[in-house]
Amino acid sequence: MSFGIDDLPVRDELRGKSPYGAPQLDVPVRLNTNENPYPLPEPLVERIAERVREAARNLNRYPDRDAVELRTRLAEYLTRTSGYAVDVTNVWAANGSNEVIQQLLQTFGGPGRTAIGFEPSYSMHGLIARGTGTGWISGPRHDDFTIDLAAAERAVAEHRPDVVFVTTPNNPTGNAVPRETVLALYEAAQAAKPSMVVVDEAYIEFSHGDSLLPLLEGRPNLVVSRTMSKAFGAAGLRLGYLAAHPAVVDAVQLVRLPYHLSAVTQATALAALEHTDTLLGYVEQLKAERDRLVAELRAIGYEVTESDANFVQFGRFDDAHKMWRKILDRGVLVRDNGVPGWLRVTAGTPAENDAFLDAVRELQSNVGDTPTPPEEQSA
Amino acid sequence: MSFGIDDLPVRDELRGKSPYGAPQLDVPVRLNTNENPYPLPEPLVERIAERVREAARNLNRYPDRDAVELRTRLAEYLTRTSGYAVDVTNVWAANGSNEVIQQLLQTFGGPGRTAIGFEPSYSMHGLIARGTGTGWISGPRHDDFTIDLAAAERAVAEHRPDVVFVTTPNNPTGNAVPRETVLALYEAAQAAKPSMVVVDEAYIEFSHGDSLLPLLEGRPNLVVSRTMSKAFGAAGLRLGYLAAHPAVVDAVQLVRLPYHLSAVTQATALAALEHTDTLLGYVEQLKAERDRLVAELRAIGYEVTESDANFVQFGRFDDAHKMWRKILDRGVLVRDNGVPGWLRVTAGTPAENDAFLDAVRELQSNVGDTPTPPEEQSA
Repeated sequence: MSFGIDDLPVRDELRGKSPYGAPQLDVPVRLNTNENPYPLPEPLVERIAERVREAARNLNRYPDRDAVELRTRLAEYLTRTSGYAVDVTNVWAANGSNEVIQQLLQTFGGPGRTAIGFEPSYSMHGLIARGTGTGWISGPRHDDFTIDLAAAERAVAEHRPDVVFVTTPNNPTGNAVPRETVLALYEAAQAAKPSMVVVDEAYIEFSHGDSLLPLLEGRPNLVVSRTMSKAFGAAGLRLGYLAAHPAVVDAVQLVRLPYHLSAVTQATALAALEHTDTLLGYVEQLKAERDRLVAELRAIGYEVTESDANFVQFGRFDDAHKMWRKILDRGVLVRDNGVPGWLRVTAGTPAENDAFLDAVRELQSNVGDTPTPPEEQSA
Repeated sequence: MSFGIDDLPVRDELRGKSPYGAPQLDVPVRLNTNENPYPLPEPLVERIAERVREAARNLNRYPDRDAVELRTRLAEYLTRTSGYAVDVTNVWAANGSNEVIQQLLQTFGGPGRTAIGFEPSYSMHGLIARGTGTGWISGPRHDDFTIDLAAAERAVAEHRPDVVFVTTPNNPTGNAVPRETVLALYEAAQAAKPSMVVVDEAYIEFSHGDSLLPLLEGRPNLVVSRTMSKAFGAAGLRLGYLAAHPAVVDAVQLVRLPYHLSAVTQATALAALEHTDTLLGYVEQLKAERDRLVAELRAIGYEVTESDANFVQFGRFDDAHKMWRKILDRGVLVRDNGVPGWLRVTAGTPAENDAFLDAVRELQSNVGDTPTPPEEQSA
């Protein structure tokens, strides 16, 4: 027997666990991690090289610890796209929205405290809770994956969580959460504790509806988190950010690792923000492709959850993992998020989506591979 | 009264705290954060721009989650410079050694567990312990800042910490820890618990002595942490790494945020590793300047702690902060790390060091600013 993890003095709750992450397989069509299929335009690539070259000339120095220029530009982007005015004091940035969430849980969660999410949802919320010693409560959803507000309010009143996560549009199901639901959850959370409500808007740019940023007005315990991984086509950059009351921005600085955001990350993000309009043009193309995926999957006979994101949840399957494998065998990698009966496909380029649709059309026409008849229509 | 941090439901232990970090002041000569004063050579700057341009063309995709190429090159660097062979399975990298330490504490420390450091030492060890819910034990040192081994062994036996930090060369004092001391602490830690021993070698390239990497042989509970911030002149890059038994590398992946290391960070670090020899040439210059600082400060009449780092601790002062301010008034920013009676100065360029030496020489000759006579000679 070779020496392994469990021979080390690791924390008990880590024993027997596996690292989080989708399989990284070399497949012609990868539609599994909600990446933006469009490479950055060449002028932006050149601008990144230019800004990073400039930053590299000062790389022997620590970066701007407070990332003031970057937070200012992010605030301008939020203001322009949401119509709700925020400035540098409202915005904080970190290495991916995962690090933003980790900092929020270190500040407002942690040992002896709890957080709730309404599952299935972005599984990192629960995993980062575990990583920060925050107790995790799995809240309910309806069968159609909308939040069961009455049950959610009861769960908040009963468990009095310190942090409430609301992901909208939700991942992996794709549906957006109505403004009224978020408002009601905020009120319930304040009545119970008071606690922080984190609205994870990683996919908001792909939504048919509007950002909930304006809800920040008069609600200092509300946080909206964002990322440049999806709409900005920069998953490789790892740049997440949040908007909130300035006191929240001050508070997370008590737990952030000093100089957490490198000079090259700041330079690259600033370059991307100069090209916002071009990148949002790609978002429009992806929204159209997403809508096409929904329509064609339904036409083929699959059940599809309403999507406001750059991905689509489809089903139902007696054995979703078996279906995942069959699609993979046809050269298309989608995601099995562990939601029984359902799989998730990212909206890719038109050609990638065609390859995916061909694969699932072929599987649908094969005897024995028909999806389970929908028991109820999703919202 | 405006709404502030303490009006939010932050964790109790964060109330009234301030964010960690040295003052970032605009001063002609900044010798306060142990940065390397030499900008990266222009061919390396160009190579960074080139590699980042290449990475940016794929930035819409997530980065290599396991940073295999980077870890391979870091392993080669460690093998070549220490003579002790490690490979990719022994090495892990993160956003600065701070994140490496955070991941180690999330894996081996955390709620209900404790870590010990021998203070004064790198204050982030204790701060990251707090941030991860790990209990912190402040272990003893001799008055000359060497580790009091007998007292340290007693502290380990008494508190049975889960993680033991040994910083060598130590920051902010500058002195290296003898190999035998580290070995004895490892044995004491194993006898007490067993627990993990983290040897923080952030400044090892500046040492008169050798890395303790060869101690990894047969010691799976030992970790050596490193950084590219100092010897590689890349504080702005935020690249820390560790070497350890492969099981440790597997274990930290249970808590690491997925895709924590961006594609631009990986590309920039890889470029810097191509220029290792040039960068290590600067290290030799800095070692000579460090030795000159020690000698001249002593000649002026200050007490100086033996230094194996790129900085020097000098004293003693009745009021170190007042002295810090007086040096600052002369255009030179050094660091007051809160060690009573002592200040720390980073080895800069020859011209920067001359400016510093001129300032403290002038202060020494002023009536009333003489240092307190040394009560005992440092080792």
